[in-house]
Amino acid sequence: MPDTTTAGDPGETHALPDAQVFFTPEERQTFYRVIEARRDMRHFLPGSVVEPAVLQRILQAAHCAPSVGLMQPWRYIRIVDPGVREHIARWVEQERQATADALSDRKDAFLRLKVEGVRECAELFVVAMAPDDGTVFGRRTLPQDTALGSVVCSIQNFWLAARAENLGVGWVSLFDPQQIAGLLGMPAGARPVAILCVGPVEVFYEKPMLVKEGWRQAKGVGHVCFTDRWESDDAEK
Amino acid sequence: MPDTTTAGDPGETHALPDAQVFFTPEERQTFYRVIEARRDMRHFLPGSVVEPAVLQRILQAAHCAPSVGLMQPWRYIRIVDPGVREHIARWVEQERQATADALSDRKDAFLRLKVEGVRECAELFVVAMAPDDGTVFGRRTLPQDTALGSVVCSIQNFWLAARAENLGVGWVSLFDPQQIAGLLGMPAGARPVAILCVGPVEVFYEKPMLVKEGWRQAKGVGHVCFTDRWESDDAEK
Repeated sequence: MPDTTTAGDPGETHALPDAQVFFTPEERQTFYRVIEARRDMRHFLPGSVVEPAVLQRILQAAHCAPSVGLMQPWRYIRIVDPGVREHIARWVEQERQATADALSDRKDAFLRLKVEGVRECAELFVVAMAPDDGTVFGRRTLPQDTALGSVVCSIQNFWLAARAENLGVGWVSLFDPQQIAGLLGMPAGARPVAILCVGPVEVFYEKPMLVKEGWRQAKGVGHVCFTDRWESDDAEK
Repeated sequence: MPDTTTAGDPGETHALPDAQVFFTPEERQTFYRVIEARRDMRHFLPGSVVEPAVLQRILQAAHCAPSVGLMQPWRYIRIVDPGVREHIARWVEQERQATADALSDRKDAFLRLKVEGVRECAELFVVAMAPDDGTVFGRRTLPQDTALGSVVCSIQNFWLAARAENLGVGWVSLFDPQQIAGLLGMPAGARPVAILCVGPVEVFYEKPMLVKEGWRQAKGVGHVCFTDRWESDDAEK
């Protein structure tokens, strides 16, 4: 891991801002451009690298995420051992085949899609949820959902930060959590949430890849916005 | 809901960018300032409002989130009926008392904290996960986690976008999901994930409120970063 406590030359530094910072319309535009340009990437530039200072900034952004009761349950395991990466790549491929079999009628179409870049990406991370630390605050009724939610908030920060660094990220969910937990020596109660492929890409998809490839149509935002109670979910509004 | 298909005067507009957009160090700084200035807010400016065009931009950002197999399982229910808001406020208060009882030794300290702003915030949303649409892609081994994860990615986009709009958001998880599902007429299989309090605030907390109030210390980023396998989680690295 890049040393995050005694940064030597982090390149760009960003001091912790005054929390009262007021954002201008121009700054907001920049922020929204990051939101809109983020993609789930599966194609990476082989042989590329990510500077340690860049990784450090991305991880710092991930660590700025909110968490229920301040649990901070996210753990980022950076995979640098090529043998470990190869292990993960093989298991992901097995799960890809199992998914293809489960899709039956769309099997061939699925197998033509590129669904992960585990071998080619510059950096590989496994993000895990730490064992429960017993926090009650804010999670009496929903203990699992809220802890997982905190990990995912952190992943989304990571993803957006990487895009702001002009790097692609792909969230791979094609894995058996117990296999990955065993491989990485996770303690009882910890569990892997995501495999993140990270690195330079040749080109960001103009649209989400599943839309671009005709796998599925995206819903409009009106479809997901209701007032005061659940509204019909069947027709595009 | 603000009409998201035929925006009249959205004020600031932002065209969908070319996905190839390259971010400069200055733009990155702006992005990181949003990440760092975001807080989980419980204090709101009473009597304030949020312009429909602003809500529309925030919801559009939420809808730009990634989702497993392009499920887009997030649903945003805007609460405008004061009776519905009052119902929710009372149930959240009940759950706050139940949490206090469950905390036993820290009960009094907990009850002194302000943990939600359901009655004072300008806008109230319930975010829910839609009933499972049967997507297999990317979620054969982890169907629940991946769908919930997609909803949470969207919530984090919403949260950051609101901060870029200089608005506070508080994620309230003090609720019984079945009560809220019933109140809002959710169909079988749908479930509430978050109550979001949204609106102008007088001041953003300089630090996360639980740190500021001495409830809990935050971990350093080094504590959550491992290499190749799980590392001891006990001591601050």
